[in-house]
Amino acid sequence: MAEERQIHLYLDDLKPGDRFVTHAEEITASDIKAFAAQFDPQPFHLDEGAATSTLFGGLAASGWHTASFTMRLLVSSGLPLAGGVIGAGGEISWPRPTRPGDVLHVETSVVEVTPSRSRPDRGMVICENLTKTAEGDVVQRFVAKLVVPRRTAPKA
Amino acid sequence: MAEERQIHLYLDDLKPGDRFVTHAEEITASDIKAFAAQFDPQPFHLDEGAATSTLFGGLAASGWHTASFTMRLLVSSGLPLAGGVIGAGGEISWPRPTRPGDVLHVETSVVEVTPSRSRPDRGMVICENLTKTAEGDVVQRFVAKLVVPRRTAPKA
Repeated sequence: MAEERQIHLYLDDLKPGDRFVTHAEEITASDIKAFAAQFDPQPFHLDEGAATSTLFGGLAASGWHTASFTMRLLVSSGLPLAGGVIGAGGEISWPRPTRPGDVLHVETSVVEVTPSRSRPDRGMVICENLTKTAEGDVVQRFVAKLVVPRRTAPKA
Repeated sequence: MAEERQIHLYLDDLKPGDRFVTHAEEITASDIKAFAAQFDPQPFHLDEGAATSTLFGGLAASGWHTASFTMRLLVSSGLPLAGGVIGAGGEISWPRPTRPGDVLHVETSVVEVTPSRSRPDRGMVICENLTKTAEGDVVQRFVAKLVVPRRTAPKA
């Protein structure tokens, strides 16, 4: 495989304060409408004209589109976890709508690292993921609980 | 339009304890792989064989796919809000993976209804949305904060 990306971080390699930044990618009006047609078919996500008279005042991405777009950025160039990016859940908010033409990247900060008491092969990492535009506006904040494998199980 | 669905509930029409249930829909292996290829290209979401040796032990939907699938159910047959289903954020968790062949529906319970102090034309509704299989397993819990318009602005 011509994979240059190193996927190598275990629970043992992470500590609070560690930071990771993804590459940036543009979200287009046609991306927004295609996602909405499939998963969130509401006027403010589907059509510029219809969106004008809504609370959004113009075309905006579904929050779930922003979340999914964020996930793609994290998986392709975010924190390189050995077991993959596996979320158990978290707290999500969308402080401002994602608009066509926004160029988004994700900034991740590790908040907490906790080995599992019952499962010596893994632990939980809490991290804050801010999805930001090129101008620095936050379009999504997701404080995630991730399941992360340990490099070696501790001695019993 | 041949729309039979009545979209008519305002903040004033909702109270804690109100319940809504969507129709049910099956999620297929090909749905799961197509979503993953676009937004969450990790082995456990893309390929049955590769998924076997992962934490999931078999093909599982991306959590964001479960979230997006849930949104489609809510928009098409969930709580019929006058302004549409507009979330400001919330708390999400995936207690068990969504598997190919799961037939999902969403059960919504209104938890809290709060008129806005600064904006007389709207308010916030907190509701719990449980996405369940036909067997009653919860694959997603999303406690959402929704922005909901008021029927009439209160007298000043």
